[in-house]
Amino acid sequence: MREPKREDRFTFGLWTVGWQARDPFGDSTRAPLDPIRTVAELAERGAYGVTFHDDDLIPFGSRDDERRRHIERFKLALEEHQMKVPMATTNLFTHPIFKDGAFTSNDREVRRFAIKKVMTNIELAVELGAEIYVCWGGREGSETDIGKDPVVALERMREAFNVLSSFVLDKGYGIKFAIEPKPNEPRGDIFLPTIGHALAFINSLDHPELVGLNPEVGHEQMAGLNFVHGIGQALFHKKLFHIDLNGQHGPKYDQDLVFGHGDLKSAFFLVDLLDRYGYEGSKHFDYKPLRTESDEGVWASASANMRTYLILQERAREFRNDPRTKAALEKSGVDEFLQSTLTDRETWRDLAAASFDPDLLGLRGYHYEELDQLALEYLMGVR
Amino acid sequence: MREPKREDRFTFGLWTVGWQARDPFGDSTRAPLDPIRTVAELAERGAYGVTFHDDDLIPFGSRDDERRRHIERFKLALEEHQMKVPMATTNLFTHPIFKDGAFTSNDREVRRFAIKKVMTNIELAVELGAEIYVCWGGREGSETDIGKDPVVALERMREAFNVLSSFVLDKGYGIKFAIEPKPNEPRGDIFLPTIGHALAFINSLDHPELVGLNPEVGHEQMAGLNFVHGIGQALFHKKLFHIDLNGQHGPKYDQDLVFGHGDLKSAFFLVDLLDRYGYEGSKHFDYKPLRTESDEGVWASASANMRTYLILQERAREFRNDPRTKAALEKSGVDEFLQSTLTDRETWRDLAAASFDPDLLGLRGYHYEELDQLALEYLMGVR
Amino acid sequence: MREPKREDRFTFGLWTVGWQARDPFGDSTRAPLDPIRTVAELAERGAYGVTFHDDDLIPFGSRDDERRRHIERFKLALEEHQMKVPMATTNLFTHPIFKDGAFTSNDREVRRFAIKKVMTNIELAVELGAEIYVCWGGREGSETDIGKDPVVALERMREAFNVLSSFVLDKGYGIKFAIEPKPNEPRGDIFLPTIGHALAFINSLDHPELVGLNPEVGHEQMAGLNFVHGIGQALFHKKLFHIDLNGQHGPKYDQDLVFGHGDLKSAFFLVDLLDRYGYEGSKHFDYKPLRTESDEGVWASASANMRTYLILQERAREFRNDPRTKAALEKSGVDEFLQSTLTDRETWRDLAAASFDPDLLGLRGYHYEELDQLALEYLMGVR
Amino acid sequence: MREPKREDRFTFGLWTVGWQARDPFGDSTRAPLDPIRTVAELAERGAYGVTFHDDDLIPFGSRDDERRRHIERFKLALEEHQMKVPMATTNLFTHPIFKDGAFTSNDREVRRFAIKKVMTNIELAVELGAEIYVCWGGREGSETDIGKDPVVALERMREAFNVLSSFVLDKGYGIKFAIEPKPNEPRGDIFLPTIGHALAFINSLDHPELVGLNPEVGHEQMAGLNFVHGIGQALFHKKLFHIDLNGQHGPKYDQDLVFGHGDLKSAFFLVDLLDRYGYEGSKHFDYKPLRTESDEGVWASASANMRTYLILQERAREFRNDPRTKAALEKSGVDEFLQSTLTDRETWRDLAAASFDPDLLGLRGYHYEELDQLALEYLMGVR
Repeated sequence: MREPKREDRFTFGLWTVGWQARDPFGDSTRAPLDPIRTVAELAERGAYGVTFHDDDLIPFGSRDDERRRHIERFKLALEEHQMKVPMATTNLFTHPIFKDGAFTSNDREVRRFAIKKVMTNIELAVELGAEIYVCWGGREGSETDIGKDPVVALERMREAFNVLSSFVLDKGYGIKFAIEPKPNEPRGDIFLPTIGHALAFINSLDHPELVGLNPEVGHEQMAGLNFVHGIGQALFHKKLFHIDLNGQHGPKYDQDLVFGHGDLKSAFFLVDLLDRYGYEGSKHFDYKPLRTESDEGVWASASANMRTYLILQERAREFRNDPRTKAALEKSGVDEFLQSTLTDRETWRDLAAASFDPDLLGLRGYHYEELDQLALEYLMGVR
Repeated sequence: MREPKREDRFTFGLWTVGWQARDPFGDSTRAPLDPIRTVAELAERGAYGVTFHDDDLIPFGSRDDERRRHIERFKLALEEHQMKVPMATTNLFTHPIFKDGAFTSNDREVRRFAIKKVMTNIELAVELGAEIYVCWGGREGSETDIGKDPVVALERMREAFNVLSSFVLDKGYGIKFAIEPKPNEPRGDIFLPTIGHALAFINSLDHPELVGLNPEVGHEQMAGLNFVHGIGQALFHKKLFHIDLNGQHGPKYDQDLVFGHGDLKSAFFLVDLLDRYGYEGSKHFDYKPLRTESDEGVWASASANMRTYLILQERAREFRNDPRTKAALEKSGVDEFLQSTLTDRETWRDLAAASFDPDLLGLRGYHYEELDQLALEYLMGVR
Repeated sequence: MREPKREDRFTFGLWTVGWQARDPFGDSTRAPLDPIRTVAELAERGAYGVTFHDDDLIPFGSRDDERRRHIERFKLALEEHQMKVPMATTNLFTHPIFKDGAFTSNDREVRRFAIKKVMTNIELAVELGAEIYVCWGGREGSETDIGKDPVVALERMREAFNVLSSFVLDKGYGIKFAIEPKPNEPRGDIFLPTIGHALAFINSLDHPELVGLNPEVGHEQMAGLNFVHGIGQALFHKKLFHIDLNGQHGPKYDQDLVFGHGDLKSAFFLVDLLDRYGYEGSKHFDYKPLRTESDEGVWASASANMRTYLILQERAREFRNDPRTKAALEKSGVDEFLQSTLTDRETWRDLAAASFDPDLLGLRGYHYEELDQLALEYLMGVR
Repeated sequence: MREPKREDRFTFGLWTVGWQARDPFGDSTRAPLDPIRTVAELAERGAYGVTFHDDDLIPFGSRDDERRRHIERFKLALEEHQMKVPMATTNLFTHPIFKDGAFTSNDREVRRFAIKKVMTNIELAVELGAEIYVCWGGREGSETDIGKDPVVALERMREAFNVLSSFVLDKGYGIKFAIEPKPNEPRGDIFLPTIGHALAFINSLDHPELVGLNPEVGHEQMAGLNFVHGIGQALFHKKLFHIDLNGQHGPKYDQDLVFGHGDLKSAFFLVDLLDRYGYEGSKHFDYKPLRTESDEGVWASASANMRTYLILQERAREFRNDPRTKAALEKSGVDEFLQSTLTDRETWRDLAAASFDPDLLGLRGYHYEELDQLALEYLMGVR
């Protein structure tokens, strides 16, 4: 049960296991990884597919024939190992051209180039069968408020998404966009910093139905926000198109730890939420094997992500099925919370006419401590 | 120019200068403040108006006749000092009944009581001429993810706002709602934790046009978010109905410092943004005089808020009018950013056909360091 | 094995289970708890003892005869239930007199009163058999840097500890002091904000041997610091006199959750560290039952603290005893780390003369991913 | 007065203006800078000197003759421009060999190599006249608590400093060490994370008199700590050997902004503190010109650091000299704080015998709001 299977839909970015471990203070500690090998290694470990930025697969600036050769090799490997590419994305952050942003660079030519780069890679994404196209705007931000008007920035961002939407509609592609929010790093402050900001932004687009979210565990936790609550809101708005699983230790640099290696308790409740709400998208690991690791550690960490997910899922299901859990949920009013506050036939007039005994109602205890401990013990395998 | 005037529209909550300085580890250090005196003192210092929670003016559980007496005294004082009440709000957090939330308590009776309490106070708000009704859901949250389903919580929250909207529509009141987001405290994690989450939520309502935002400086900064960016997004969505000005030192407990006594540079750019976009709502200070202060310090701190705002506004205007600023903005491409990325006649096809020299474009410097220093020196009064 | 026993040395502050759940935004939700009942309830659940602030047991300002009566009742209860009082402390934060600090108030009379208050309660602590006297300086701080010189503040703090040390030495008491650091709340910034600052400060005292630390899980985590590292440094300096166990979700207000209900993985490694280094002091829970809880939840949460500790201890020991763990530690060089860098006979000259192959040494992988996953699976009860 | 002069002792690391702006998500945006040019440019702008890591000046792995050539060119430039090298440091973080730490790598050979690398560069530092040798242990940490025992880590760290101390003593060098603390990045958690932890550690060394601190503004602020308080404690222990000035926006990745471009108010109080306590060491800027900048922006940002410092210093002095300030400090009890709590002739017995009226003492107001506003207005140039 803890062995990953295709139907678990676990996927990895080429850039995750392929990270060469260059960081702001250090050079690479690992050799480049051929995407072909990545496909084979991940397939062997039970993954469902891989994802990629254009530049992960095809070096920036490649000639058309080189580009084609990279693609064909990759397609052969996918076929051989029966691996899918459910998602693709664009690198709009590595090259110096993007230093002030892509869709929101002050330089208009840069903005135009960025949109073109996305379109080019959407063509490839569609060719490879991807259904989701992730947009992480890591460079869309600022270090000083004077250099970039935040209202105008959202106008420019909206324009970019509207252009891209008309592109996929005109082309007849079924692919959908998923915005990945992040509060900061590499920019001092990034636009659309959280799940909430991205959800709100989507409503301003010409085609909001084409755009959803790709929330990442660590990104919300970098702002000290509760990731489970965030995913709850994404589900509420029916915008959870994709998810990036990893680990983080609160507000600090982006750690991209193995899933569960950060806040384990939150990971448990996340898996429980995804399971209960029937999330059917990819379970995508966007993590980085520690810089201390050699090749062996890279693959060990890939497996660790999947194992942890499966263990947590097993535990969450057992927890939910325990009669003690049901009784505890009842006692805490979790079921009562499902009832609407007004009945179908009631209006505000019924509330206005009602009377209450606030002091009496204030006496109720909610028994969350018992419930939380019960959950925690399940997480720890105590039964 | 630094003397507050009515037209500056500075307002204060009764609970701000009236805070008795009880904190989680200490008893009150100041005596209760009669709202009548508050009105007089603030009027004398140049404020435009005051705002209140129901329980600030009328003790929880007052009989109807007592309630009426409190209201009449208050109205007389307002009239005498020509003070307005542009905003009112509900206390849904002090009484034990709200310990598990108001609109999102697991207890259905509590939810019903909460909505009724809001309706009762909206009647008073309308009577006093308020145009904005703030909703801060400080108790709407959780300390453990198992006790409160975050999807259901948003359903319950939506239901409450829909009921309240039908109430004001049926009554024919012109008042609008302004949601005040906060990430945590007094709950471990609060629903609608940031400007973004609240903006997104509004779109799910039956009457989104009736609901906007009341963002607070410190609340966004508690999540490490850039408040100027947040206000930018609220303006982008045309939802900046009201604003709470104060100071905070990053992610820690809610400090409610005097405006400008936290991140001064951010305060400068905030005032600049509000000024440039013609924000016409109240400039509402939601702060707490330090617990170390006696009555004298309370009023000194009230004035400090207004003075700092006016000084920053003066500086921002001078900065914007300096020809050096215009030249520096030009050099940084701030004007170029105003141009749309595509012309009116262009489509994605034009971008697809265009060619670019990324390496050349990557050479451009954006001169933000000079621009930022220029702004900073204006803030420091160096000319 | 998960049933707490006296020899586990679990202790609780009277103020923990006795917290009436008044918070900055809300009134009490629970009735006062008689310390006599607290002693009985905790004894029944397997605790070893209780601890107290003077004002927890004897209301501030009590007359001498009242004070004596409170003490005698308490002693009887302790005796009846065979409960110890291994630690006591002073409330230097609730009364308005301490609003600007106790040992570091700008007001000299306040500083003098504070020292006297501590001495009075030390007498009681000694009478009750306490061996550790905790000093938490929650009010020793500032909200603005201009009002309190930080160098002078440490001078005043040093003076207080020197006076108190001469007091216990002159009296011949064997009690030792334990400083409890905290970064902020209730003050904007507190002096001696972390384990490190307090350790450094101790070295400036006349009798450093009398003073050690009482680190608290949540306090270090409020600064985003690794608590296990902090305890490591306290052990390194042989200053871990006492410990406050609880839970926290990173930089935000002080949550005082049940131990393990915050960062579970860190709690696991903490228990492992204490166990491996043979910590023999009290395992003191300084937490607050959630404000949503009634009496039943209070006692459930008290038990939850102890159960979680024992479960983690059991898991840590099994983990350490597994041959796979030993092999994995070897592979990661954890054993090699125990070897001194130079042999006893070597000096810097030997290093200066040595030659190295950095590129070769840089190839080594440290296998932390496998090791971390192994530990995590033990924590989750996967064997 | 705002023109930097040699006597202001402003210094810059070669790696600051020389940063090529490679970050975790992006390639370099600027060409390498020849140290010779750096010396000339900074001298022209009024700097006093430059500092360097060994590898900034001499590429890692250079042959001896190449090394010598780099040194001689550098010395000529220093002489030509009359620039000093008051401090030097070692790069123990870029090469893959250091991926698990330098003094605290689990690999003993790595630890030995690291100490040797430091000794080699100390020789050069002494040759160039440096008086301070900074040790920033950026790689000395961990991402998981299981892989590196924190007690042992401090043992290994102590060993390294003891060896280095005996090296400089045996050699007769007058150079002193300054430890630079940092909480995290590039490691998940770094040992000696704050000023406090480093101060405590120094006391465990064989020669604590040889070792002090090099605190950095942004590093303490990454932990949400008050930098002015931290510097206060370093001064209290007489360990402020050097200082790294820059800017940061709270807990997030290490931003290394221009001094004053982060928390301006804290920068003001810092300059005031250094000025009042007669700090005579280098004012060293350890910042990074934004990645958006080209060469022009690099030098503009260098000047911005110095200008901001001088403006703040001017403002702080004017503030201190204003009779209103003196009156306000008096009113807040800042002078009273200078008085010792006990007179020279008093002991604890005098306090024990004294009587107090706590309620009366609790009425005092401390007038910090007025004082803070006065300081803020000085900072903003309002007089």
